[in-house]
Amino acid sequence: MRYELYYTASNQGRGEFVRLALEEARADYVDVARESGPGRGAEAVTRLIQDAAVERPPFAQPFLKAGKLVIAQTANILLYLGPRLGLAPRAEAGRLWAHQLQLTLADLLKEIQDTHHPVAHGLYYEEQKPEALKYTRHFLAERLPKFLGYFERVLGGTKGRGCMVGRSLSYVDLSMFQLVEGLRFSFPETMQRVEPGYPGLVALHDRVAARPNVAAYLKSPRRIPFNDRGIFRHYPELEAEQ
Amino acid sequence: MRYELYYTASNQGRGEFVRLALEEARADYVDVARESGPGRGAEAVTRLIQDAAVERPPFAQPFLKAGKLVIAQTANILLYLGPRLGLAPRAEAGRLWAHQLQLTLADLLKEIQDTHHPVAHGLYYEEQKPEALKYTRHFLAERLPKFLGYFERVLGGTKGRGCMVGRSLSYVDLSMFQLVEGLRFSFPETMQRVEPGYPGLVALHDRVAARPNVAAYLKSPRRIPFNDRGIFRHYPELEAEQ
Repeated sequence: MRYELYYTASNQGRGEFVRLALEEARADYVDVARESGPGRGAEAVTRLIQDAAVERPPFAQPFLKAGKLVIAQTANILLYLGPRLGLAPRAEAGRLWAHQLQLTLADLLKEIQDTHHPVAHGLYYEEQKPEALKYTRHFLAERLPKFLGYFERVLGGTKGRGCMVGRSLSYVDLSMFQLVEGLRFSFPETMQRVEPGYPGLVALHDRVAARPNVAAYLKSPRRIPFNDRGIFRHYPELEAEQ
Repeated sequence: MRYELYYTASNQGRGEFVRLALEEARADYVDVARESGPGRGAEAVTRLIQDAAVERPPFAQPFLKAGKLVIAQTANILLYLGPRLGLAPRAEAGRLWAHQLQLTLADLLKEIQDTHHPVAHGLYYEEQKPEALKYTRHFLAERLPKFLGYFERVLGGTKGRGCMVGRSLSYVDLSMFQLVEGLRFSFPETMQRVEPGYPGLVALHDRVAARPNVAAYLKSPRRIPFNDRGIFRHYPELEAEQ
C-alpha cells in the first residue's frame, strides 16, 4: 500500500506526527504537497478538501489517502496506521490507550499553538502579542508541568518500561519525541530548567532520536526545519516575560 | 455490562456527549459523581485520576469504566461505546469516519470554551473579559461559520440522508444535537440569525430531540441544566459586541 500524506509543505505542524510513524516503519508514502506533477503540490491538498465528489471530506489538514479511504484528524490517522505499521498494540484495550494518550498530546499541542495565537488563528502573532504574553505565562506555569508530569507518570520515569504503551515502541513514543523536540525549540530556557524533572521523557526522546530510521529521516531533506510558521515557534519574548 | 461514567456533577460539559449516547441506547450506567455511597460522589472522580494503582490513568474527566477498562477522552469513549450501543457503523471505514467527525466537533468545542476562557482556564472569566470579547468576535465571524458549514455539507443539507454517518443514527448525531442546543444557549441572537443557513443541522437537531429516549432524558432530572460553569455559557456581552 502506498500512502499519500496531504499536508502543507511550509512547516512540520501536525503532519510531522504522521511522517514520523511512516518514516520509522519505512512505509511507502508520498508527501503530496512537497512533490510536483499531476495530483501533487500544495493545490492538490486544498483541491481535495473542497472536492464535492469526496464522500468523506476532511475539515482540515493533515489527511491521509490509503487506497479509497480519506482519513483526517492526526490522532485518527495514527489510530488507523498504528497496527498496520507495527506501531500500536494489537488488542483493543491497548489501541484505545495509545489513542487516548495521543489525544491528550493533541490537546497539549493546541495549547502550545495558542501561546502565539491566543485570540485568532486568522490574525498575525504581532496582532495578538499582549494576549500571547499573558497566555504563555499561564501556560508555562500551570499547563505545561501538568501535561509533562502526567506523561512522565505514565512512562514510570526512568524505571518504567521505557515506552509509553505496553512493552514496545508505538507511534505515541514517536510523538513524544517530537513534543520534546518542539518544546526545546519554542521554549529553550524553560526546557533547560524543567527537563531534570522529567528524566523518563528525556530518555525516551533520546532513544527515539537514535533509532536508525528516525535518525536517517532527521538528517534527510524530508525533515522540514522548525520555523516561524508551525505549531512550535520560537519567540524569545514569550519566554523572557515569565 | 454496567458502565460507570466519571464526570463532574456541576455542569453538562464533555460528559454530556457520553450521557446522550448512553441514554439513547438505554444503557445500564451509573453517573458516578452524582450518586452517593462507597465509590461514588465527586471525590471518586478525583480519587481515580490520582490513584497510582490505575494502570492506564486518565489525564482528565470525563472517563468511563467498562469492566476493567478505564477509558478517557470523550471521542475515545464514544469510539469504544459506539459499536457496543448500536450507535456507530460496524465497518472500520465507517467507524473512523464517525470518529473523525467527533474529533472535529471536539476541536470546535474547545474553541467555544475559549470564547469565555481565551487566556487561562485557571482564571475567572471576569479576569479575561477584554480578551474574551476579542476572541469571540473572531470566533463568531470566522470559525463558527466554517465549522457549521462543514457539518452542513457532510449532512448534505435537508436533501441528504438525514444523519451524519451512513444511513442510521450514530453518536455523532447525538453530539450535533448537543452542539446546536449549546450554541443556542450561548449565542442565542447569533444562532437565530445564522440557523436558516444550516437547515440540515437544524432538522437533525429536531429529529434527535424528538427521539423517545432522548426526549425522556431531557425532561428528567438526569439532564443538568445549562449554567455558567460549563463549556456553553451565556454571557450576553460577548455576543452584543459583535
